[in-house]
Amino acid sequence: MADLPSLWTHEPHDVLVFKPGEKVADIDAGSTPGFTGSKGDAPDLQDERNERFAGLQEMLYAGSREGDTRSVLLVLQGMDTAGKGGIVKHVVGAGNPQGIRYSSFGVPTEEERKHDYLWRIRKALPTAGQVGVFDRSHYEDVLAVRVHDLVPPEVWGARYDEINAFEKELVEAGTIIVKVAMFVSLKEQKKRLSKRLDRPDKYWKYNPGDIDERLLWPAYQEAYQAVLDKTSTDYAPWHVVPCDRKWYSRLAITELLIEALKTLDLSWPPASFDVEAEKKRLKDA
Amino acid sequence: MADLPSLWTHEPHDVLVFKPGEKVADIDAGSTPGFTGSKGDAPDLQDERNERFAGLQEMLYAGSREGDTRSVLLVLQGMDTAGKGGIVKHVVGAGNPQGIRYSSFGVPTEEERKHDYLWRIRKALPTAGQVGVFDRSHYEDVLAVRVHDLVPPEVWGARYDEINAFEKELVEAGTIIVKVAMFVSLKEQKKRLSKRLDRPDKYWKYNPGDIDERLLWPAYQEAYQAVLDKTSTDYAPWHVVPCDRKWYSRLAITELLIEALKTLDLSWPPASFDVEAEKKRLKDA
Repeated sequence: MADLPSLWTHEPHDVLVFKPGEKVADIDAGSTPGFTGSKGDAPDLQDERNERFAGLQEMLYAGSREGDTRSVLLVLQGMDTAGKGGIVKHVVGAGNPQGIRYSSFGVPTEEERKHDYLWRIRKALPTAGQVGVFDRSHYEDVLAVRVHDLVPPEVWGARYDEINAFEKELVEAGTIIVKVAMFVSLKEQKKRLSKRLDRPDKYWKYNPGDIDERLLWPAYQEAYQAVLDKTSTDYAPWHVVPCDRKWYSRLAITELLIEALKTLDLSWPPASFDVEAEKKRLKDA
Repeated sequence: MADLPSLWTHEPHDVLVFKPGEKVADIDAGSTPGFTGSKGDAPDLQDERNERFAGLQEMLYAGSREGDTRSVLLVLQGMDTAGKGGIVKHVVGAGNPQGIRYSSFGVPTEEERKHDYLWRIRKALPTAGQVGVFDRSHYEDVLAVRVHDLVPPEVWGARYDEINAFEKELVEAGTIIVKVAMFVSLKEQKKRLSKRLDRPDKYWKYNPGDIDERLLWPAYQEAYQAVLDKTSTDYAPWHVVPCDRKWYSRLAITELLIEALKTLDLSWPPASFDVEAEKKRLKDA
């Protein structure tokens, strides 16, 4: 934990990783697991950790220019207003666009519907050196699709294993998958939706369907529970992040990314050329 | 110019846009056209203007969620070390990854070589609401390709008109193209290459081929002159940006992006739903 700011009592991964038996119904969305600081500590700490993330992200990208094929994929799942967009803007946005790949997965297009549900996902995977971010993901195919009965139960029921196999394949090919389930309370969600309806500069983030989804929260809760129970694996575990306090969820997810990047044991790639010979060539050029 | 900070005496677009007859050989890469401030003014001003850019970029993206199909494409061309990467990191990086699309174009891959030179370009164009950035571009096909005689003169010679027609098509489809030719002096380039050879954390940015290219500067100068003469059009003009002072080139290109976004006359999209009815629904939900 040498690198971790002292306001954390535990590695965020350790406190947030899904524990077998953990119940979605018991999640306290307003809590701040592992963090002893307060909202006032957040801005400076976030800036500092954004820089740390950006430094590691650049090193990952640099390595790819010299043949390292590894990558990172951040998967963000959560109900409307959980703060996925804020993570993209304030956490992932600290990185260099050169090495960031953002993809969002809404209602499938006509073309997407002609293919297997993983088709559009495969096309959006991070390539060597990239940090990819999925704003929603293949998990919609066992969340929204399950809740809305869009395919028969035996079809979505088979997907948990398919997803595990798919993710195993990615991990074996060198992608670290950081899966984050973002939980906002119904009370806080109402507040955030209400804000979107009060501010004309937020209308575009509001969709009448958000209320329909809200009314289905018990069914979603069940679907999220199944996702966590069935797809939190050794190689691609879920993290359960309480999101009623945006400053906390941003700090926590930043640390999850930093921890993931640190496991890659990155360093600046060595020169693939003779440095002294090049210095001489440059002198004369 | 109401929106422009007072340290600019002219709209950056007006001073930097390529003027017919302007000679590449006469460009002073160390100059700071239109800007009366100094390096010390840059950091605060850059922060402020990054925010302005980010605000407009978000508005462009928001509009696309309500059907606006317009987009912006920043095309960066320049010799090695001109600072393309710095523009991506420090200027474009201020935007939200949600609405930014970065693409770089190096030596074509085997698959790319099987297709027309515009094939890979078309695949990377910004979609509705995006700010795309090309780190090198289709102009490599009349720059590196011309300098290295990779295709016969009649082939590259035909490309200027093809490129103009291609860009016209994009502009007519709603993309604003901001083309920036970044000029660094040979002296400053030597300094920057030398720094890359002195710092192990910069080795990955160095390529022995950079010196080969440096030695071809007269041929590149000629090729850049042809690009400016032949492809600076009313609908997609080139901007000539002196880049020996990174702080200047970053400020200038930020302003070029802001100006481009401002011509779109953006506003937050109106609600596509009945706001009062939704407020009532939410209250009960």
